[in-house]
Amino acid sequence: MTIPYLLTPGPLTTSMTVKEAMLRDWGSRDVAFIELNRRVRSRLLALANASEDHVCVPLQGSGTFAIEATLSTMLAKGDKLLVLVNGAYGRRMVAMCHAMGRAVETLEWREDEPVDAPRVRERLTDDPSISHVALVHCETTSGVLNPLADVARVVAERGRSLIVDAMSSFGALPTDAREVTFDALVASSNKCLEGVPGMGFALLRREMLATCEGNASSLSLDLYDQWQGFERNDQWRFTPPTHVVAALARALDEHESEGGVAGRGARYARNHEVLVDGMEAMGFECLVARSNQAPIIVTFLTPASTRFHFSEFYDALAAKGFLIYPGKLTVADSFRVGCIGRLGENEILAALDAIRVTLDEMGVEDGAPSLQALLS
Amino acid sequence: MTIPYLLTPGPLTTSMTVKEAMLRDWGSRDVAFIELNRRVRSRLLALANASEDHVCVPLQGSGTFAIEATLSTMLAKGDKLLVLVNGAYGRRMVAMCHAMGRAVETLEWREDEPVDAPRVRERLTDDPSISHVALVHCETTSGVLNPLADVARVVAERGRSLIVDAMSSFGALPTDAREVTFDALVASSNKCLEGVPGMGFALLRREMLATCEGNASSLSLDLYDQWQGFERNDQWRFTPPTHVVAALARALDEHESEGGVAGRGARYARNHEVLVDGMEAMGFECLVARSNQAPIIVTFLTPASTRFHFSEFYDALAAKGFLIYPGKLTVADSFRVGCIGRLGENEILAALDAIRVTLDEMGVEDGAPSLQALLS
Repeated sequence: MTIPYLLTPGPLTTSMTVKEAMLRDWGSRDVAFIELNRRVRSRLLALANASEDHVCVPLQGSGTFAIEATLSTMLAKGDKLLVLVNGAYGRRMVAMCHAMGRAVETLEWREDEPVDAPRVRERLTDDPSISHVALVHCETTSGVLNPLADVARVVAERGRSLIVDAMSSFGALPTDAREVTFDALVASSNKCLEGVPGMGFALLRREMLATCEGNASSLSLDLYDQWQGFERNDQWRFTPPTHVVAALARALDEHESEGGVAGRGARYARNHEVLVDGMEAMGFECLVARSNQAPIIVTFLTPASTRFHFSEFYDALAAKGFLIYPGKLTVADSFRVGCIGRLGENEILAALDAIRVTLDEMGVEDGAPSLQALLS
Repeated sequence: MTIPYLLTPGPLTTSMTVKEAMLRDWGSRDVAFIELNRRVRSRLLALANASEDHVCVPLQGSGTFAIEATLSTMLAKGDKLLVLVNGAYGRRMVAMCHAMGRAVETLEWREDEPVDAPRVRERLTDDPSISHVALVHCETTSGVLNPLADVARVVAERGRSLIVDAMSSFGALPTDAREVTFDALVASSNKCLEGVPGMGFALLRREMLATCEGNASSLSLDLYDQWQGFERNDQWRFTPPTHVVAALARALDEHESEGGVAGRGARYARNHEVLVDGMEAMGFECLVARSNQAPIIVTFLTPASTRFHFSEFYDALAAKGFLIYPGKLTVADSFRVGCIGRLGENEILAALDAIRVTLDEMGVEDGAPSLQALLS
């Protein structure tokens, strides 16, 4: 059986050496593992130039757990969060606030358009009761890149606290804490760091976190308490996913060897360019304008041809060794292809070949979407 | 570098074949992974003979996350939980209720003594406002085995809902849903199933779970919602720890090959017997009477000799390839040695040799504890 390449927003294809790092067991309270934790935590801070004012608090579970833990820990009872929504991950933060019983409001944009900072400034001026703002850096719903630096400037100017969901950008798109002011930036072992899934982490401003004792409405998701555990003895409070941590440590070494954020970002940008060029040559159209598109995952509009059926297309590509991803849009029929993970130009070219052959097999002349989809 | 054997309550030593199951990447929404989920979930139910009335809901994170998710999902606003406490894991459930704002009370026992069912019956009779009872099957704080069947009978008689923390017993000690009435039984991939850490799961009575919509005070920890996701398409709502799931699938195959719960339990019982015999021959004393002791982890009282220092003892054993575990007791100075994971009589005998040599090196004549410790 061929193991397929994962052209998805994650879990994604990792290197064999990252997976091989999971071939040993670790005592979670032993010095060897403690040393591993220390290294991983300090490397993650360094990737965002955040070693001075922030601390890194890892958490068991998926990235969503780390996001919810960050909200639960940072939002005190009287606080109010403004979520900037242009996709499913923004909406998910709203659902978390409802579940936790925290006050939340939204500013909304179309899913194919980035958030714009001036509207955020206006809202913050109008509503002094908003204490925190949450932004998804790259919305993998559509693949749109939101203007983190602009939003951060506005939020800082207005004296509010910024929470960044950097799940699918961290490690590939630069985030420099010396230039961009944030109180929390959350990501996961998976995605652009190319570890395996199973843990997330938050980079939290130390001064802010120190005020968050007792906020969380959950023991497991209390990042203040989790931080105190690490401060005490560099250990996780509860059983850590030891193998996932070991894989992340290895993945961070490989990230560094590739030239860090710049090197990783350059490979993904090249993957993205080759992918979009090749797809456009077949008539496919991207949902998001190139200037607003992150080199992470691309949304393509469903072809107009009545012979095109996504599940058939998906299965045929899977049989050829490439897993793509369904659409998650409310605005248009679409599917998604990821550019991240341990793959490069050659694998993208091979995927494009497979797509071309599959269209032929299906009798679909080209990937052109309907005019209606383009205008929607 | 030697990879040490983990004589701990987990993470523990797993087979190389279980770890090798992590050498591939999985698309989390692909049919191959969906099939894996289906198999794992149905095997976990079958292990407890619970396929008829219960459903298996896996959750990302450590076992503690699965416990908290179960409490958060099952306890509605007006409910009240009675936790039977004889160690740290019982106390942790109380802390969860405090964090989540759920009403909770406790019945407490010494850490070296099992819970007794008659006191539970009395309390349930006295306080009709108690809706749920939580019991830790094997308290790894001390290693004491609690009388699950007796407690379950009393709770059922009194018409309350039972939640069992079976973290360190599931897969090695029999739990038969046709004989023992429970609404929830929670365990993890790690521990006696000998997978790697990174996910937990709850076996939940379907009829009960169906009434739990909207209870949870967290999105990530909402097992009703997680269940609905699996019901819909056999997929996890949020990124699953794919490699951990694959390792668990392999571990369940190996569990079956060993003869299931009976086979696994017999090996651990033998490990336990060899360990305790060997330690007692060196003068060590167990905290818990043999009849109340689970064959999972054993607490030994700290030797009286002034030459014995735990950290020196730990380091010397680690250097010889065996990691043991510090004590977690409030009642006496102690340390712990686990009997679980991918190890048998030969490894236990080798550990006993290493302990004997280490005592000699430290100039400790024998392991006898002080009279004071014995009487405490």
